[in-house]
Amino acid sequence: MIVVLKPGMTQEEVQVVADRIESLGLKAFVVVGKERTIIGAIGDERLLADQTLESFPGVEKVMPILKPYKLVSREFQPEETVIEVGGHRIGGKKIHVMAGPCSVESREQILATAVSAKEAGATFLRGGAFKPRTSPYSFQGLGEEGLSHLAYARQMTGLAVITEVLDPRDLDSVYSHTDILQIGARNMQNFKLLTEVGRLDKPEMLKRGMSASIQEFLLSAEYIAAEGNRNIILCERGIRTYETETRNTLDISAVPILKHLSHLPVFIDPSHGTGKWELVPPMALAAVAAGADGLLIEVHPHPEVALSDGPQSLKPVKFSALMKDLRKVAQAVGRET
Amino acid sequence: MIVVLKPGMTQEEVQVVADRIESLGLKAFVVVGKERTIIGAIGDERLLADQTLESFPGVEKVMPILKPYKLVSREFQPEETVIEVGGHRIGGKKIHVMAGPCSVESREQILATAVSAKEAGATFLRGGAFKPRTSPYSFQGLGEEGLSHLAYARQMTGLAVITEVLDPRDLDSVYSHTDILQIGARNMQNFKLLTEVGRLDKPEMLKRGMSASIQEFLLSAEYIAAEGNRNIILCERGIRTYETETRNTLDISAVPILKHLSHLPVFIDPSHGTGKWELVPPMALAAVAAGADGLLIEVHPHPEVALSDGPQSLKPVKFSALMKDLRKVAQAVGRET
Amino acid sequence: MIVVLKPGMTQEEVQVVADRIESLGLKAFVVVGKERTIIGAIGDERLLADQTLESFPGVEKVMPILKPYKLVSREFQPEETVIEVGGHRIGGKKIHVMAGPCSVESREQILATAVSAKEAGATFLRGGAFKPRTSPYSFQGLGEEGLSHLAYARQMTGLAVITEVLDPRDLDSVYSHTDILQIGARNMQNFKLLTEVGRLDKPEMLKRGMSASIQEFLLSAEYIAAEGNRNIILCERGIRTYETETRNTLDISAVPILKHLSHLPVFIDPSHGTGKWELVPPMALAAVAAGADGLLIEVHPHPEVALSDGPQSLKPVKFSALMKDLRKVAQAVGRET
Amino acid sequence: MIVVLKPGMTQEEVQVVADRIESLGLKAFVVVGKERTIIGAIGDERLLADQTLESFPGVEKVMPILKPYKLVSREFQPEETVIEVGGHRIGGKKIHVMAGPCSVESREQILATAVSAKEAGATFLRGGAFKPRTSPYSFQGLGEEGLSHLAYARQMTGLAVITEVLDPRDLDSVYSHTDILQIGARNMQNFKLLTEVGRLDKPEMLKRGMSASIQEFLLSAEYIAAEGNRNIILCERGIRTYETETRNTLDISAVPILKHLSHLPVFIDPSHGTGKWELVPPMALAAVAAGADGLLIEVHPHPEVALSDGPQSLKPVKFSALMKDLRKVAQAVGRET
Repeated sequence: MIVVLKPGMTQEEVQVVADRIESLGLKAFVVVGKERTIIGAIGDERLLADQTLESFPGVEKVMPILKPYKLVSREFQPEETVIEVGGHRIGGKKIHVMAGPCSVESREQILATAVSAKEAGATFLRGGAFKPRTSPYSFQGLGEEGLSHLAYARQMTGLAVITEVLDPRDLDSVYSHTDILQIGARNMQNFKLLTEVGRLDKPEMLKRGMSASIQEFLLSAEYIAAEGNRNIILCERGIRTYETETRNTLDISAVPILKHLSHLPVFIDPSHGTGKWELVPPMALAAVAAGADGLLIEVHPHPEVALSDGPQSLKPVKFSALMKDLRKVAQAVGRET
Repeated sequence: MIVVLKPGMTQEEVQVVADRIESLGLKAFVVVGKERTIIGAIGDERLLADQTLESFPGVEKVMPILKPYKLVSREFQPEETVIEVGGHRIGGKKIHVMAGPCSVESREQILATAVSAKEAGATFLRGGAFKPRTSPYSFQGLGEEGLSHLAYARQMTGLAVITEVLDPRDLDSVYSHTDILQIGARNMQNFKLLTEVGRLDKPEMLKRGMSASIQEFLLSAEYIAAEGNRNIILCERGIRTYETETRNTLDISAVPILKHLSHLPVFIDPSHGTGKWELVPPMALAAVAAGADGLLIEVHPHPEVALSDGPQSLKPVKFSALMKDLRKVAQAVGRET
Repeated sequence: MIVVLKPGMTQEEVQVVADRIESLGLKAFVVVGKERTIIGAIGDERLLADQTLESFPGVEKVMPILKPYKLVSREFQPEETVIEVGGHRIGGKKIHVMAGPCSVESREQILATAVSAKEAGATFLRGGAFKPRTSPYSFQGLGEEGLSHLAYARQMTGLAVITEVLDPRDLDSVYSHTDILQIGARNMQNFKLLTEVGRLDKPEMLKRGMSASIQEFLLSAEYIAAEGNRNIILCERGIRTYETETRNTLDISAVPILKHLSHLPVFIDPSHGTGKWELVPPMALAAVAAGADGLLIEVHPHPEVALSDGPQSLKPVKFSALMKDLRKVAQAVGRET
Repeated sequence: MIVVLKPGMTQEEVQVVADRIESLGLKAFVVVGKERTIIGAIGDERLLADQTLESFPGVEKVMPILKPYKLVSREFQPEETVIEVGGHRIGGKKIHVMAGPCSVESREQILATAVSAKEAGATFLRGGAFKPRTSPYSFQGLGEEGLSHLAYARQMTGLAVITEVLDPRDLDSVYSHTDILQIGARNMQNFKLLTEVGRLDKPEMLKRGMSASIQEFLLSAEYIAAEGNRNIILCERGIRTYETETRNTLDISAVPILKHLSHLPVFIDPSHGTGKWELVPPMALAAVAAGADGLLIEVHPHPEVALSDGPQSLKPVKFSALMKDLRKVAQAVGRET
């Protein structure tokens, strides 16, 4: 950590800051430059995370040198994390596609979707039983009933299941009906929830918050890892920008950045990321070309009567065509589907 | 609601969409223009909120006419909401200042802060017992112990208290120790929590999410109101932009916009909104000049050893000076402190 | 165009707005809804572009139905624009890669880069002679001398050339030394410059402004097209967001959106779009997978001594490897390099 | 400047970077930490601005210590810049209001506006003769004729005049008709134009670009100052964010930040900053409360027939009422109007 001091500090004032750093177990060194004096802190600067050196009189700014996360970093673990779940290996050569409707609406709907998703080559079934909706007047999901429909579709098709948990009080029932628990974008900084799923022995998919920086995203993953659960999938799903042609701006560059900074598998959700089904296929192909380990894609047999997110859902026939194109791009970059 | 159709639709295709609108209890009218055909839907278009007309083949875009929130809108209730709490009236002529540290750190710290805040003219004591922190390695708050310190400071000074609740499971204990419950920016779309505080008989302060639009902010307030609790204070605390000189960009224009769209009182938090104590006084004055009903300001006796948010906390002497300046600006715009 | 009126308007007030619309040559129809009255305007609403109906008392908002651009729209011209330049066809099956240094620094540097770019498969040489630099103390480009170095490299290698023009007064000399004129992101709304290049008979590459919406981007292209020059290449080069891990956020979704809304060829600049050379290859592959017609890539023989943008420049050996990977992805999506 | 190296560098590799720094006239010092080695550069690091140390193999990141601008910084000149123009002093105790229409539309319109602006207390008349318009089909300004109308209004009312220059080729005629030259937001990084106005002996108002950081804004001012012209007024006019209720998000916090970092006067344009006339008065009051030295306000006698920006223009009667309120807020913060 580098502490930059304001001009005109006395030697005593500089020493106060240096002493504070040393009292916390780091070594301080002072460098007097032409226009600024700086103090460097050598050691594990994460010890200083809570120390608000910026509040000291005379401190102009504090610049960290190290990343604030550790367990999820590539530096801590150079080799890729590969997650074994539902008979699959996530994070290896094979690109996994998790498909299904935004909301579970009925047993028939989820089963029909599951069957066509499986036929097309998906390995996981996605579907929300608990739905976070912007308006209190919108459909909020079927809850427990939705979970049991998902379990039924899993049983009938053999697809593994991923579904979202919103409330710590639903953890037990979600845990018992799913293979992977999803933490949605709105809960990326619901730290209590992160802590609790960190104690489970099932994998988590953590979606990036709508305006979360890469660093905040990895710190949220660190919350889970710090509790012992290292089976975390990172999922980029679009960030909020000024552009209004799309629902969000899908940050494809998050894929190579996250792969560079972390050892965790990285997925892309082009459905939420764009909000328009026409954009899902090209962005899905782009994600795989950029190195994504998998995709989360909304598929609905009848988008025009979907209870949520119809405009971004692919019909099964379009999903099937996409899977064929994906295969070719995957091979072009040395992967498989 | 106006549904814009793609060019080249047949009359039958147009009719399918019109029929769908009528089947939902609204009246549809079709207008054939030179370049586009549109269908208008007359009636309570909120009925269509879940109907994904955009998914119909041939629909180019759907444009709502009405606001999606109702109970919190100025149209629904033209007169200002005035909230009576702790012997005070929030939303009237008097501007209320809620002051205190980011985190409750000890009984001594909170009491010392409360005493100086009261002397300077604050009417509420703020302080966090449960802290949402970006890093798992940062101080997470004193929890229940913090709540009891707050209650002690309230008893000793007579200041009313506001504190944040993060987890539905802490609602009972927070409820019993505070006058106003705060929903933080990270929980603005924790809809389960909103629903539950909507059933309480104590006022809520709802902070705007870091990248929430004004409309989403009001929809979150609608979640609370829809459960029966109309005593809601809206608080702008800075939004995320590309600028890095400040922690967030404090959107002062949210004050007149929210006052125009809604009848609820509007507060500003210049401490989180800027992240730098030097900017707190000018932005506090600006907020009052723009019509804010109150302020949330971080005050700490020793910011340089604060366990969180030291750089944005005012020392008591600076807070006291600010309160004097606030009085003058309040009077200039016909308010009082 | 739909004009939404505030509640409680008299019939006379409504009529004033309707009359205004009709006086401008459009047909107005009034629809009285339960909560709002609206007025629709049938005809070429672009006639109303300058008419500030929102300023009428009683008007709540104005919602356009039609796109404000015309000549560059897919609706106006359904078939793809293919640009013939330097013996190449841009916008056809072949994906073109334009490679070279950010700045032309010397005859040797540009020639060496051109030779290696050509060997690797690039068809155009890029290089800036006039450089827009954030700081007045940075290298501002070689100017005319840089243009002559570019012309020399073109002559020696046969590569076609693209270079940026900043100032209308440099148009003649840039025109005479280049095959394609580039309008940089900072000049996307330099409307005088757009108008002047619109009168030239050489193709233009128009880069998206750092915070330009898709609609503004296409309106800037419309400026050029309106003067007669339809040979316009659109280039996405990253937009400004809150994220700081990358220099900009490269909006890959702009490719399918622009291809949907417009008939013009679309390029991606992954070098400026990310600011880091490590991210250039994955984002280049992603761009092609998403449907881009070409790429603009910074290549420098010695990035560590480059006078500008070294950190985002590929060395020739890495560029050559990328070209091989590009070929495979291009084939996977039915294109060629 | 601090150069952070990647882990695992050999001593030789470290030395290569250190030697490079020293060869450029700075002193390098190496600090070997537990997880990272860093190299500090002592001296005027602006010498390194063009040196792309980040491109060296083994360099993880480069962190500047000093601000990249100098002449416009508060550090370089601690006392406020006060600009004498048209018989007024800008940057002193008095708050100046520059009022007038977005576009000069006719001699009558500009004169009527000027008379009412002067009566209300404005000291400068604003009005655009050359207009940068997003659409090629919008009114582009009266050009030279507009300039002469402005000059006429100045002569008749005694108000000083400010108007925008877009094109270096119009500099002479704009110069001869105005007291202050305005560089608009879209030209904030038109570096050629900045350089040329920097050589003039009339004051400039530089507006912040729509997505310009504070640092980029000050670097653009530095371009002007570096040519010799130190009479620069900085004007915040709203930045682009995700929020759509307002045209832009007016960043009031830019006022105290700019006053802290620079000695130049700071103005606010609440008309462009919000895009809605209802928001102009509260934001104008907020700006003054936050410490602004002046305001730029759009006033139009008949906003509903304005050729541009009608929705954000105040009618004279509302402007006059605002001026009365401004006086009170100015006095409350120790200023005068």
